[in-house]
Amino acid sequence: MSSNGTELPKAKDLWYKLSPEALSRRPSPLKTAFKYAVDPRIVSLGGGLPLPAYFPFESISATAPEPPFSTYNNAELAKDAPMISVSVDRYNHANDPGVIPLATAMQYGQSDGCKPLLAWIYEHTKLVHNPPYSNWGCLMTVGNTQGLDAALRLLCSRGDSIIAEEYTFSSAMETAHAQGVKSVPVKVDLEGILPDELDAQLKSWDGPLPKFLYTIPTGQNPTGGTLSNERRKAVYDVLSKYDIMIVEDEPYYFLQMDTYVPGISDKAPPTPPTVQEDPKKYKTFLSKLITSYLSLDVDGRVLRLDSFSKVMAPGTRLGWIVGQEPLIERLTRQNEVSIQTPAGFSQAIVYSLLSKWGQDGYLDWLIELRKEYTHRRNVCLDALNKYFIEPSSYAPKGLGEYVEWIGPTAGMFFWLKFDARKHPSFGKLSPLEIEAQIYETAIEHGVLFIPGSWFRADQEPVDVKAIPGAGDDASFFFRGTFATVPQEQLIRGVELFAETIAAEFAAK
Amino acid sequence: MSSNGTELPKAKDLWYKLSPEALSRRPSPLKTAFKYAVDPRIVSLGGGLPLPAYFPFESISATAPEPPFSTYNNAELAKDAPMISVSVDRYNHANDPGVIPLATAMQYGQSDGCKPLLAWIYEHTKLVHNPPYSNWGCLMTVGNTQGLDAALRLLCSRGDSIIAEEYTFSSAMETAHAQGVKSVPVKVDLEGILPDELDAQLKSWDGPLPKFLYTIPTGQNPTGGTLSNERRKAVYDVLSKYDIMIVEDEPYYFLQMDTYVPGISDKAPPTPPTVQEDPKKYKTFLSKLITSYLSLDVDGRVLRLDSFSKVMAPGTRLGWIVGQEPLIERLTRQNEVSIQTPAGFSQAIVYSLLSKWGQDGYLDWLIELRKEYTHRRNVCLDALNKYFIEPSSYAPKGLGEYVEWIGPTAGMFFWLKFDARKHPSFGKLSPLEIEAQIYETAIEHGVLFIPGSWFRADQEPVDVKAIPGAGDDASFFFRGTFATVPQEQLIRGVELFAETIAAEFAAK
Repeated sequence: MSSNGTELPKAKDLWYKLSPEALSRRPSPLKTAFKYAVDPRIVSLGGGLPLPAYFPFESISATAPEPPFSTYNNAELAKDAPMISVSVDRYNHANDPGVIPLATAMQYGQSDGCKPLLAWIYEHTKLVHNPPYSNWGCLMTVGNTQGLDAALRLLCSRGDSIIAEEYTFSSAMETAHAQGVKSVPVKVDLEGILPDELDAQLKSWDGPLPKFLYTIPTGQNPTGGTLSNERRKAVYDVLSKYDIMIVEDEPYYFLQMDTYVPGISDKAPPTPPTVQEDPKKYKTFLSKLITSYLSLDVDGRVLRLDSFSKVMAPGTRLGWIVGQEPLIERLTRQNEVSIQTPAGFSQAIVYSLLSKWGQDGYLDWLIELRKEYTHRRNVCLDALNKYFIEPSSYAPKGLGEYVEWIGPTAGMFFWLKFDARKHPSFGKLSPLEIEAQIYETAIEHGVLFIPGSWFRADQEPVDVKAIPGAGDDASFFFRGTFATVPQEQLIRGVELFAETIAAEFAAK
Repeated sequence: MSSNGTELPKAKDLWYKLSPEALSRRPSPLKTAFKYAVDPRIVSLGGGLPLPAYFPFESISATAPEPPFSTYNNAELAKDAPMISVSVDRYNHANDPGVIPLATAMQYGQSDGCKPLLAWIYEHTKLVHNPPYSNWGCLMTVGNTQGLDAALRLLCSRGDSIIAEEYTFSSAMETAHAQGVKSVPVKVDLEGILPDELDAQLKSWDGPLPKFLYTIPTGQNPTGGTLSNERRKAVYDVLSKYDIMIVEDEPYYFLQMDTYVPGISDKAPPTPPTVQEDPKKYKTFLSKLITSYLSLDVDGRVLRLDSFSKVMAPGTRLGWIVGQEPLIERLTRQNEVSIQTPAGFSQAIVYSLLSKWGQDGYLDWLIELRKEYTHRRNVCLDALNKYFIEPSSYAPKGLGEYVEWIGPTAGMFFWLKFDARKHPSFGKLSPLEIEAQIYETAIEHGVLFIPGSWFRADQEPVDVKAIPGAGDDASFFFRGTFATVPQEQLIRGVELFAETIAAEFAAK
């Protein structure tokens, strides 16, 4: 049902998009017998399930902060933060709906994920994205890296191509590369994909069209860019016109940030209001989130990759894919013969916690994280202004003529664009040779930034010797992150890199 | 080093066995920067790792039985079983080597698995299998289903073939099928592969040789067969002669059993001796284990798939592959762009438990499980004798003329072979039609057994109408398990199936 109560149409039939591998998957006949194995009227000597009594785990438990959260103090959990404990026993004799007992979670089971967790994810997805067609579904993965591997196997064969942002997550490109799938870069600016360029590129495409767009629209890795709602709609329309699928990889989606104001990081971040102080708190939070491709997806051509890796912990190895049911069914067949299902410990602990927090409590957690990441982003941008723009002992006129950036509004990354033409070695060294030299110099100087060329979507060996004459081609980039180190080190890291840049460009 | 102290030779160079997919995998350049990211002299704004302070898990803990184990009573953990608790905190300020703190376990990290767990697995593998070449290694998987998926991607391309036991784990065959890899059955008897038949089959092989043998040599699924040491050596030699790889899938390896003596299930299973009572307890246990292909593998042509699924719980989603290092390196590259690594909760909890138990404690656990599974096997075989062989109200002469089996010596399964020629519909119905009819009749009668044809290695649609004249082709099979239901239900299930068989064959 749509929000105004009318029945939504079904997704387009996109079965013809499936790869031979995906088409050939057959349900396990053993799974057809599963309905008898759980029928209490039937003694099952069918499935090879070990008795839960033989699992050497009587119970597990976890301690976690309690909502509403105002629990962080300079990126450390406050000592007096109120905590809750969740506990999962071997059996669930009390039939607590907030628990997946170990006898279930640790047993072979549903390949799309434990039912209660899946239902929770479905409810969350409806709340946040409300896809505009009726037959959508979800399936658990062990994270977005595996989610992309699965999407590639679902839609591509060796020799096919996909398109991706010009600079993108290099592991994603390597996932495609090893499957024999070529990544073709799409032109971006510091915000993200340029819809007109995309249209022109597809119009003049040589050979079979790419199978899908792989995109990280929010807090992009590596550029930190977040595509505006308008551009998302335009990109969707272009891809719909050429009948191309979209895989949106959104690990950073909830790390969207408040507006940056220079100097703001001196103040402690404001504590989010409680629901008593602002009854519309959750509605406001949800309404401010950027429009996902999934929520624009009238055709059912989007596979959305979501994950707890960045909003809980990478080691949960819990992600999920949202898409039209016929594709989710194929991915379930794929799970059956690869990962089976995410780890039971993860599903049991995370479900217990989510179930205790509730949907609102989870939003509270995300609001708290947003506050923390906003503050870290502010610290980072203030440090960039201080060490790169303001005059300093190592750069009396500042470094503004060599470098530019836009302040990220989501994610973990910032992206510095340098003008190689201003470097004293320009002409003798190519921009990428200068980039490589700065990478090494920075490490010698005690700071690690990642060279932008490592994220090139095409991932062919780069000819670092090529020396362009002028123009855009004389740019190079570095990726930094404000997520990984404590605040003091973040500031120190920016300072060290500024010193490196000053020394590198000084001889000019 | 070998056990007599001489340096072992390296494995053969089998790089030419790799698939184009495996050959094309490249290490992530980001991983090359990882050494700087963990260098305390360098401020890393490099990797996109969320701060562990933001993981909403302060600590996790698990309660488990304590070794030595004499803790089970009719497949339920005794109420007074001594228990231990393992606890894992966010940080490991005490530097306890028995703990992988959540800050590490739940972070992005080593794609081959958390180092301490991997070291434990390595030590265990050395203790149990002691591979006869020097450069072997291990890598964590999320279970053997994914391990096989990885092995197929490592060694096969679409259009290739593998060989497998004539009846085998159907999901494994489906894994191959979807990758476009054809499974060709190898003739077996009730024990397993017949080496001479294998030799003859490969000698007259038409086209490119199969890429590997997929085999479950111990407690095979579905037949329950365990190949003898002599036959294993012979099979290895045949495959070495034709230069074919071996993937041994050994989830049931430690569920090896003591000898069956009819009527023995009336007695409670004997409690294994303590180490005080038998100081050679562990040595004896290890020496009685059947020879793995890995321990015969002078060439380095074996990939061994091992797992905690059947000896701890399927939901650990923790398995591992042992093989020669160059292949393990390729599989690590594959992990990087698919599963990344098993769930941190699983690695942290299981490692804490193993580390508290110690290698000997883990062997104690396996000895206890072996005792339990031996007893369940005994109960099952006694029930088969009672309801199928002894005269009964529904079968005054017993059912011995219709059915045969061999008592399994490992695993979870038993395999009943029926003679279709004795069925009243033989001639009108094919053996497989009779099998299908019995499957349905059994369900109506309240018991689930799985038809043998569901496990055919070739997995092509079976022509159930084909009516063979006589001979072996007039056999059909059913798989049962003694692992899944409590003892009383196991006995009842066998009785119900015997009644079904009696009614089915009665009209003759």
